[in-house]
Amino acid sequence: MDQLELMKRLSIPGEAKMILLIMDGVGGLPGPEGLTTLEAARTPNLDMLAQKAITGLSLPARPGITPGSGPGHVALFGYEPTDWEIGRGVLEALGIDFDLGPNDLAARGNFATVDEEGNITDRRAGRIPTEEGARLVEKLQQIELPGVETFVRVVKEYRFVLVLRGEGLADGLTETDPQMTGVPPRPVEALRPEAEKSAELVNEWLEKARELLKDEPKANSMNLRGIAKVPPIPKMNEIYQMRLGAIATYPMYRGIGRLVGMEVLTTGDTIASEVETLREHWDDFDFFFFHVKKTDSYGEDGNFESKKHVIEELDGVLPEILALGPDVLVVTGDHSTPCSLKSHSWHELPIMLLSRYIRPDHVKSFGERPCMAGGLGHIRHVDIIPLMMANAERLQKFGA
Amino acid sequence: MDQLELMKRLSIPGEAKMILLIMDGVGGLPGPEGLTTLEAARTPNLDMLAQKAITGLSLPARPGITPGSGPGHVALFGYEPTDWEIGRGVLEALGIDFDLGPNDLAARGNFATVDEEGNITDRRAGRIPTEEGARLVEKLQQIELPGVETFVRVVKEYRFVLVLRGEGLADGLTETDPQMTGVPPRPVEALRPEAEKSAELVNEWLEKARELLKDEPKANSMNLRGIAKVPPIPKMNEIYQMRLGAIATYPMYRGIGRLVGMEVLTTGDTIASEVETLREHWDDFDFFFFHVKKTDSYGEDGNFESKKHVIEELDGVLPEILALGPDVLVVTGDHSTPCSLKSHSWHELPIMLLSRYIRPDHVKSFGERPCMAGGLGHIRHVDIIPLMMANAERLQKFGA
Repeated sequence: MDQLELMKRLSIPGEAKMILLIMDGVGGLPGPEGLTTLEAARTPNLDMLAQKAITGLSLPARPGITPGSGPGHVALFGYEPTDWEIGRGVLEALGIDFDLGPNDLAARGNFATVDEEGNITDRRAGRIPTEEGARLVEKLQQIELPGVETFVRVVKEYRFVLVLRGEGLADGLTETDPQMTGVPPRPVEALRPEAEKSAELVNEWLEKARELLKDEPKANSMNLRGIAKVPPIPKMNEIYQMRLGAIATYPMYRGIGRLVGMEVLTTGDTIASEVETLREHWDDFDFFFFHVKKTDSYGEDGNFESKKHVIEELDGVLPEILALGPDVLVVTGDHSTPCSLKSHSWHELPIMLLSRYIRPDHVKSFGERPCMAGGLGHIRHVDIIPLMMANAERLQKFGA
Repeated sequence: MDQLELMKRLSIPGEAKMILLIMDGVGGLPGPEGLTTLEAARTPNLDMLAQKAITGLSLPARPGITPGSGPGHVALFGYEPTDWEIGRGVLEALGIDFDLGPNDLAARGNFATVDEEGNITDRRAGRIPTEEGARLVEKLQQIELPGVETFVRVVKEYRFVLVLRGEGLADGLTETDPQMTGVPPRPVEALRPEAEKSAELVNEWLEKARELLKDEPKANSMNLRGIAKVPPIPKMNEIYQMRLGAIATYPMYRGIGRLVGMEVLTTGDTIASEVETLREHWDDFDFFFFHVKKTDSYGEDGNFESKKHVIEELDGVLPEILALGPDVLVVTGDHSTPCSLKSHSWHELPIMLLSRYIRPDHVKSFGERPCMAGGLGHIRHVDIIPLMMANAERLQKFGA
């Protein structure tokens, strides 16, 4: 039986408060002194929790697979990440807080420079500044297509988002980016019959867009990538019959939360402001997704000390979070981002689960190596929500 | 999504050198002194590696399932062993270095004795010597069939291999061996319509073969078993975009390697000669399958001391292997062959993985019990290649 089907069948209402506390990219590899950032950080509160918790390691997708931010979170929210792929265009739109609907086809756009023959000379249009991108996007917003609305939004520098909205749009389209210079952008092609109308519309938009920008010195053309619709993903609020609130400082994570049926709560730029938001809304929701971004950002930079400090900052606010009295608390990450790799990686994440219905193990601190000996053993991200639901007494018995 | 599909999509070229070092049947059960052969063996080098490695236990197929050599290796090479069955006839042909192609139908043959009524009196023809088998096989090689080539090869004693080669041959055929004496061999029957022509051809061959041997004192008949084609298994060199070299002293393991897209490297009869082969070809391949056979042979004999000595012999050459500087090294076995059982078994295998991107655990020696506490936990053989590929930095990120 499909996991989500089973969850929908067994979920019941309840009073428990749950927090899924995600430190993005928190997992690491041993650094110069043999410790990971999490092991090296001074984290009295996380360690105190580990002593009361059941701990373990959690695998985001499959052994050896390095997930992007999309699959990492989709898995945390209980969806098999290789079954529920979220296209790049959709993630890009979510990343600028664009509220995508089920009739929207979203693409990531890159301004590019082409020569007189139409061959690409710069796939990033000289990395034009964001203000320049914003001006161009305003021009492109004038383009009209038959039967669909269009939205063009600047992201950053040469990057923008194009959204077509209308009945009958379909994904299954090729990208225009040839991934090299000296050749023209490719036309968009339909990979399945239902997508033919969408291919025509996108090609028409591209033609008009290139005509509008033909006199620009740098951004006189563009490529579209990852043209995709929101997958018809069952919503968590419906599956689990609960109200979910998403607290995240970065738009993409709010967007993924919204996509799976969470309400996005307005918050500030800091962990402290996220805690404040949690406190304000404590009575309104059953489940909180609490996302800390900068562990990942510093991992990507290879900045061991700063990643450690973000973990310590989170550790510092933990007493405030615990003071709210969550019935079920999980602390883990979406994926690992070791400073030595400066990128996401395939490694498992340390995880701890607290509730009054656990069997505390003998692990004394929260880290990659200590959690290897944890009582949860090795679980998968898709197991986390079912475990939280069980500990919240919100899953009925299966069978008589 | 299918594992191999995902691997094909994410694999990229790279420079890393990988070794998959297999001690066949290495897993065991505690012997008279409470230790397994691997735990009892003096293995300073394996233990030193275990201290630097991440370790664990790996399950060949499924809990409780004892794999043959075919499934054990198929799983090690990343194929779900219950999805990719290799017929007995195919394994027997690979075991004598016969180069099977996609149009070949291979069967294991057993010479047998029948009485005047055609009823079997000895299913092994009095275990005739191999030279006798060779003489009979030469006779049988004269048989001609319409539209297909035939190859008959002696294996050992009363065992031989029959291969039919031609367009349109199909497997899905019953065996002739009634598994008892006092009854005649059965005719071959097609289990599906596509196999009817093949059934007719095999029955025609059997008729001619029995006619040719009717005056033999012992081997005056035969049975055919495991009549099979090579499965259309996707090749590792294509899935992973890499060059793979197989080093094995026994033909069957070379044959399985060839079947999955490895190049077979000529080597001698000893572990030392295999190391020499590895060294000679070090620059030519990305991935080496290095197979040590005799751990299994002595396990099958129930010879605890000799199995231990083979492990110690391998331990002795490890420094030479490490001196080549592999980027990724995995040491494990295909299946367990406990001396107390004198046969393959279902038990997990100790495994260790070395690379610069691991989290070393606290395990201090390489053995069944120490590895129970390893940081890899309990993995499956099909996870090994994805983990090696990840550690070789040869898998792209999944999703954005």
